[in-house]
Amino acid sequence: MQNVKILLDESEIPRQWYNLAADLPTPMLPPLGPDGKPVSPDMLAPVFPMNLIEQEVSTKRWIDIPSEILDILYRWRPAPLRRAVYLEKYLKTPARIYYKDESVSPAGSHKPNTAVPQAWYNKQFGIKRLTTETGAGQWGSALAFACSLIGLECKVFMVRISFEQKPFRKLMMQVWGANCIASPSNLTNAGRTILASMPDTPGSLGIAISEAIEAAVTDSTGETRYSLGSVLNHVLLHQTIIGLEAKAQLKKAGEKLPDIIIGCAGGGSNFAGLAFPFAQDMINGAQMTIIPVEPTACPKMTRGQFVYDHGDVACMTPLLPMHSLGHTFIPKPIHAGGLRYHGMAPLVCQGIVEGLFKPRAVAQLKCYESAMIWAKTEGTICAPETSHAIAAVIDEANKCRESGEQKVILFNYSGHGLMDLAGYDAYLSGKLTDYVLPDDEVQKNLQALKGMPKAEARKSGRW
Amino acid sequence: MQNVKILLDESEIPRQWYNLAADLPTPMLPPLGPDGKPVSPDMLAPVFPMNLIEQEVSTKRWIDIPSEILDILYRWRPAPLRRAVYLEKYLKTPARIYYKDESVSPAGSHKPNTAVPQAWYNKQFGIKRLTTETGAGQWGSALAFACSLIGLECKVFMVRISFEQKPFRKLMMQVWGANCIASPSNLTNAGRTILASMPDTPGSLGIAISEAIEAAVTDSTGETRYSLGSVLNHVLLHQTIIGLEAKAQLKKAGEKLPDIIIGCAGGGSNFAGLAFPFAQDMINGAQMTIIPVEPTACPKMTRGQFVYDHGDVACMTPLLPMHSLGHTFIPKPIHAGGLRYHGMAPLVCQGIVEGLFKPRAVAQLKCYESAMIWAKTEGTICAPETSHAIAAVIDEANKCRESGEQKVILFNYSGHGLMDLAGYDAYLSGKLTDYVLPDDEVQKNLQALKGMPKAEARKSGRW
Repeated sequence: MQNVKILLDESEIPRQWYNLAADLPTPMLPPLGPDGKPVSPDMLAPVFPMNLIEQEVSTKRWIDIPSEILDILYRWRPAPLRRAVYLEKYLKTPARIYYKDESVSPAGSHKPNTAVPQAWYNKQFGIKRLTTETGAGQWGSALAFACSLIGLECKVFMVRISFEQKPFRKLMMQVWGANCIASPSNLTNAGRTILASMPDTPGSLGIAISEAIEAAVTDSTGETRYSLGSVLNHVLLHQTIIGLEAKAQLKKAGEKLPDIIIGCAGGGSNFAGLAFPFAQDMINGAQMTIIPVEPTACPKMTRGQFVYDHGDVACMTPLLPMHSLGHTFIPKPIHAGGLRYHGMAPLVCQGIVEGLFKPRAVAQLKCYESAMIWAKTEGTICAPETSHAIAAVIDEANKCRESGEQKVILFNYSGHGLMDLAGYDAYLSGKLTDYVLPDDEVQKNLQALKGMPKAEARKSGRW
Repeated sequence: MQNVKILLDESEIPRQWYNLAADLPTPMLPPLGPDGKPVSPDMLAPVFPMNLIEQEVSTKRWIDIPSEILDILYRWRPAPLRRAVYLEKYLKTPARIYYKDESVSPAGSHKPNTAVPQAWYNKQFGIKRLTTETGAGQWGSALAFACSLIGLECKVFMVRISFEQKPFRKLMMQVWGANCIASPSNLTNAGRTILASMPDTPGSLGIAISEAIEAAVTDSTGETRYSLGSVLNHVLLHQTIIGLEAKAQLKKAGEKLPDIIIGCAGGGSNFAGLAFPFAQDMINGAQMTIIPVEPTACPKMTRGQFVYDHGDVACMTPLLPMHSLGHTFIPKPIHAGGLRYHGMAPLVCQGIVEGLFKPRAVAQLKCYESAMIWAKTEGTICAPETSHAIAAVIDEANKCRESGEQKVILFNYSGHGLMDLAGYDAYLSGKLTDYVLPDDEVQKNLQALKGMPKAEARKSGRW
């Protein structure tokens, strides 16, 4: 039988998360408050519980995973590492392609890896309910799942256009007991203000974040906090279980470190989860090419600016040092809803500045072509976000065919596409279009960043 | 960590299928032709390839699984055996509940277990394309998946109402390259005849089967055959990999044989796949209760008649000895589309007659209540078909709580419900209704069976 699946058993599940902040050559820039001064942990306390704030600001290299969290993660973890031998054959490539299959979680993506710890730490801290936002619905359903198992109430502000177009994602949240609300809503000042001026707005992730934060901080009981599915340090930390497992699995498969690591990147968490434990090896001298992939419709890493910017439209979040297209930027409605975000996780951005990560942008049509090749060779239907990673994998594997190099390519199969088949429908019926953000649009959006504090680029120059 | 997941490694995957026909105390009744005489293998040759017909009529106990088929099954098999500790806690039951998780396949159900061998044997026999029918879409998508990997064309006649209401299942088939057609269609005589008299018919599984068989046998190239996703002996044979794995996994978990085995049953294949390898132990003297569960809206096992009947509306199939409500019976549109079939696999029916299997009917509302309990305890969203098994599991576990018995309950988690959330929507919004087929309806339908040959009940009287 072909060695297409590398499993770890219970005893091999990672017991600690890896914190890249401990090893970056130059220290992380701090988040800034409205006054331009660094935000202290206390200032975040109305939004997040203190145990998660401690993780957010920690520079400790390894952080223990509580056994109660492992008990829940163990329901679907360790996730399989699979070798894409059928894709390799189809491409006639000498490359060996491995992928971490995060689609096996109950919510169908990597998101529960952080939803579960976030719900658990909040519960430990005495919190009774969480608010969050969701775009395509992967994060909202993951948090609903986690809250259901851990015993928290969950309120999800779902971008209105997705709320209407994706009733099934909403239903997943409802089955898990969450309260899912179309955003903008009448429940918050942020929502009411926007509805007053734009009653027919389809909503956006930036608006939904503003509403979710407001709903948390204005709850007079003090028992509500906000939860974010990507971008922040503690979220990326929780996702490193992916890369730590992958490392052990590659070793089991008789491989050394991969030559190329690829993940799609919207807020950065699935990419970071796979890549960070390997980035540590790069920092320690290993040679690898690590590629976060974004859509050409939302090219913050390849064409945005490294700057201090807000994470939301209403400027309720602190200023984060990140590659951004501006917090007012509304990307075109490509099907990869999870990649339609103006900013990027500061830890990923710092890695880009350092030269550790080499971002790349791919257009929508090529992604769906790649997803179709994947479905017919590897037999599974990937999420539109994941198709961006697959497109880059196919490119790299094709380069290996031309050069004859037997590179090891590792990527994150971040989620299945069973809830996102509308994009395939558009592709199959010839209605899918590409979208490359025009230069003048980029410039116009970057203009809006002019008043923001400069995020000084601290490039180590090693890579 | 809690022992909630029992995995087998590559070396432990079953290498043979188990054939219950070899061990039933009384021999199987043969299928009959239109003349009332037993159908010979040759007569089936226009419909199925001879290598599958040989399996259909075989009484050999163990049949080798070709290594090429194992290579494909190994992509997701052995499937996990999981222990439902969270449900156990919720129910405060001393019972130990295990379930075989067949939702992990790329198509999301147990169906690929037979779709892959069927496609492979057809390909070996020189067949170029397969036709089939699908109701809810689980089978159609599984066969599309298998044909895509093995390299066959695939034409699926999908019951019109599902074709319109479930565009995502149709899209799965299209992504895997299948041609999915609403049935009744203009492509067949059977379809045209029905459309002429009932242009607005929503279609039915019985009609779609007629169309798919006609499309196969009338192809003048001789390179097309028909494929069925349940009912037939060879289909159930392929599914026994489920029960064989489960047996090895229970042993690993330190359990002896289960006390109770449960599966939902539409055509019978997921139930049989889990139950048959354990039925062999019963035949050899072990004590177990094995329960196939059907909906009260389509109660063929509990209220139908054991008789020779056709598998389709247009009477194109041979007469099969089975529990039936009559081949013209159209069940109410409950959400468990896979359980809306008038008949049942002859091997399962013979087991019922023998007393090996004790069928039970459950109403729709109770099934969804059970599915909601499941989602909030075990964390996954089950298919509407699977919820019937879960409802019976909860009943049995509650009995154990009352009696204090520490029974081992094993059931088949036959598929996830991510493509079938409309039923949850109806439940959550209070619109879901129960339906128990009234007595006069049963009697009226059984009347239609009066002219059929008697299927002599050969009860061994041992159970």
